[in-house]
Amino acid sequence: CFALGRQLTIEYYECSTKALLDKTLVEKALLDAAQKSGATVINSIFHKFEPQGISGVVVIAESHFTVHAWPEHDYAAVDIFTCGDNIDLEIAINSMKDSFESENVVISSDQNRGIISKAFEQKKVGQIVK
Amino acid sequence: CFALGRQLTIEYYECSTKALLDKTLVEKALLDAAQKSGATVINSIFHKFEPQGISGVVVIAESHFTVHAWPEHDYAAVDIFTCGDNIDLEIAINSMKDSFESENVVISSDQNRGIISKAFEQKKVGQIVK
Repeated sequence: CFALGRQLTIEYYECSTKALLDKTLVEKALLDAAQKSGATVINSIFHKFEPQGISGVVVIAESHFTVHAWPEHDYAAVDIFTCGDNIDLEIAINSMKDSFESENVVISSDQNRGIISKAFEQKKVGQIVK
Repeated sequence: CFALGRQLTIEYYECSTKALLDKTLVEKALLDAAQKSGATVINSIFHKFEPQGISGVVVIAESHFTVHAWPEHDYAAVDIFTCGDNIDLEIAINSMKDSFESENVVISSDQNRGIISKAFEQKKVGQIVK
């Protein structure tokens, strides 16, 4: 059984409201996390919504980092998709914890993506009938 | 119990190799899926790796679509993160199925993100100790 990628979802609760209101800070948080963890940053987009809320994506050579921040709930949703073994996920997760000043970090899923030799055995949680 | 967002991961197996080699096609596949499903596209980045492989992210007003395509395995990994109820996920998933000519689509996870009233009860699959 061989997986092409790995995707983690991370919930950052009880963050600093001020941090999550600041697009420059959120962007730097993601880029710093990617770089410190050993990822190669290719490109990024960050968008600030009105009156608040930030979405951002960082494309890395090894896949992506994304963030969606709700300052009104002191909450940010992050996911990290990687392929290969050269990214230190613990460094990435802790770096964002510090940047967002989160008091409650939950790794809510850790999933293999692209299970090449066992495609038909992958757990299905939903179905689309056409 | 109230969740701010919803994240689906979708595995597109047995795709057309030719489709997954074509950056323009993959980009159009994601943008079409986002638009047809009712999402509001804000910005996107698509990157082609050498000798093959495409990564792409579409930031939408309701969060994001991402794709990582491995033409050598006829496989593409997609995730869709939405907030609100105005996006028709079935339309999005089927639209990409058609674009990639996938013969085997697996919805591998369907997850609530940002469980505001029950933060401490969210299932933990991993832990980071600092």
